[in-house]
Amino acid sequence: MATIRDVAQLANVSVTTVSNVLNNPNKVSPELLARVRAAVDKLGYAPHAAARSLRKRSSGLLGLVVGDITNPFFSELFEAIELAAAARGFSVILCNSNETTEREETHLRMLRSQRIDGLILAPTGTASMNRAALLAALEIPVVLIDRAMEGLGYDAVVLNNHRAAYEATSYAIGCGHRRIALINGPKTVRTAADRLQGYREALLAAGLALDPALVRDAGFREQSAYEAALQLLRSDQRPTAIFTANNLMTIGVLRAIAELGLSCPDDLSIIGIDDLPWAEAVAPRLTMVAQPVRAMGETALELLAHRIAGTRLGPGTTTVMEPRLMVRKSCAAPASMPNAEDADV
Amino acid sequence: MATIRDVAQLANVSVTTVSNVLNNPNKVSPELLARVRAAVDKLGYAPHAAARSLRKRSSGLLGLVVGDITNPFFSELFEAIELAAAARGFSVILCNSNETTEREETHLRMLRSQRIDGLILAPTGTASMNRAALLAALEIPVVLIDRAMEGLGYDAVVLNNHRAAYEATSYAIGCGHRRIALINGPKTVRTAADRLQGYREALLAAGLALDPALVRDAGFREQSAYEAALQLLRSDQRPTAIFTANNLMTIGVLRAIAELGLSCPDDLSIIGIDDLPWAEAVAPRLTMVAQPVRAMGETALELLAHRIAGTRLGPGTTTVMEPRLMVRKSCAAPASMPNAEDADV
Repeated sequence: MATIRDVAQLANVSVTTVSNVLNNPNKVSPELLARVRAAVDKLGYAPHAAARSLRKRSSGLLGLVVGDITNPFFSELFEAIELAAAARGFSVILCNSNETTEREETHLRMLRSQRIDGLILAPTGTASMNRAALLAALEIPVVLIDRAMEGLGYDAVVLNNHRAAYEATSYAIGCGHRRIALINGPKTVRTAADRLQGYREALLAAGLALDPALVRDAGFREQSAYEAALQLLRSDQRPTAIFTANNLMTIGVLRAIAELGLSCPDDLSIIGIDDLPWAEAVAPRLTMVAQPVRAMGETALELLAHRIAGTRLGPGTTTVMEPRLMVRKSCAAPASMPNAEDADV
Repeated sequence: MATIRDVAQLANVSVTTVSNVLNNPNKVSPELLARVRAAVDKLGYAPHAAARSLRKRSSGLLGLVVGDITNPFFSELFEAIELAAAARGFSVILCNSNETTEREETHLRMLRSQRIDGLILAPTGTASMNRAALLAALEIPVVLIDRAMEGLGYDAVVLNNHRAAYEATSYAIGCGHRRIALINGPKTVRTAADRLQGYREALLAAGLALDPALVRDAGFREQSAYEAALQLLRSDQRPTAIFTANNLMTIGVLRAIAELGLSCPDDLSIIGIDDLPWAEAVAPRLTMVAQPVRAMGETALELLAHRIAGTRLGPGTTTVMEPRLMVRKSCAAPASMPNAEDADV
């Protein structure tokens, strides 16, 4: 196997220069970089990350644990974080908890044994004694994303979930809706609790009472949201609008509408949190509350990099980012309501 | 920092037993495993993967390079591969080439320095001299996924792309279409070349000529497909059906239809390769040719694991997996064709 000496000889430079070029590629001339890289490639020389890790106590690896990689929110988040990490010389091990605490803990054990330099974590909702212990045992900087957790003292980057829900609900009320269902995640997840609170306050501000029959926990899952929507839409007092607390659940509601042969927005209005890459590709175009996903990922990476470099000290803070209402066509004035003749207008 | 001796003392077993439990958790009793794990967690002991890597010449890391993680095909593929890898004790570093050779090469350099044990690669289309050299320098097993590459001798797992395109085109012809456009990827990518060939042969088998004006390269990208569809749909001789060669391009075509105020399938039929998680959530429900994504990922991981373990030898072979036509509502008989009065029926 080729050594750094072989590379130096072939590139006709000193071993120190090769080391310098490989460790600080941005600080040397393009010509020198090209010459050393050509020698590295020709010889198949691999600077050994594991050996470097033992020496420098840095693996160059970051961990990212997300709730569900098939959720476009998380795949876009990964893309943004990976790009920002690469620009700082880090690689990312992506782990999918699939929203189960058991898999989250398995991933944390694995990341610990890989000696990652830092971790970005979207924790699953279920309370877990092991999580705090495992995170502490990592002995590295941690940034929480999407979901804050109390009492751990980490930096966090989250959406203003309260405002996102408040705006969505208020928009539906402004369209004329009075029976607005909320299909939410579990209240143990902070985002879901905040979204419920925003929904509640928007109703209150409009003088509307919260009907508990209209609030469902579908676990942020498509299939559960589909089932919840079917129940809601088959009930006597069905809603005229459904507000979904994430994109996967919006898909579930759309599927229920299609199955029942209902028309959106004529029979039912829809508004949801999380924009979808195809929101403008379907009829009706979907009215959504968009999260600044890329900015959230970049901010989290920035915070983590400063913690790793030691250029950020002190207790963790929470960065709250603002949502943006994307008004399109799926939420409109209620038209032919069932039992419309009974309503006291 | 806690040592293995501390763990052994707390768990009241020997150092050898601790090592044995940590390296072969499946081969010891659940009671012993629980006892040692409790001690490991309590002390925050981290078996050092980097040190283990130097000793065992195994990092426990696999690389997965995909074309675009925001493409549901690749995010589902990652999910399947990560699960299968975890079951065998491997972690996965996910890399996103974003379909550029430059990023693909940067990722291969990084994976080399992390000393991954094996690589699953969906190569970008552009020819690259560096790729072969970088792969050879990895000196590890490589399995290609989604896209075969000639002459490298690796195992590969691919869709029967020819059949997928042949079935989609034949289905559209069976519905009565004669002018069927193909929005494809670049011919330098093997999947695109095979899909063009399947399209061509289905037309031939039905006695139809291939009209080059109806075949577009949209680089597997949504925006380019949107633009290509707008051009096609505004032309004098517009197609009555569009066949898209992947899911992102299907979204682009749907967006063009929405923008032009056309109705699917009345004004235009759509059929595409890659099922979408929301294909049944929109109106009309989308007729697609589904890939066995999970089985493809699991098969690739299986092949890679056997190569790593040395239980699979000899030259690489290509595993071809079969598509499945999902007949729904977006591809139907052509209705009100423009210039219908001119057509010699």
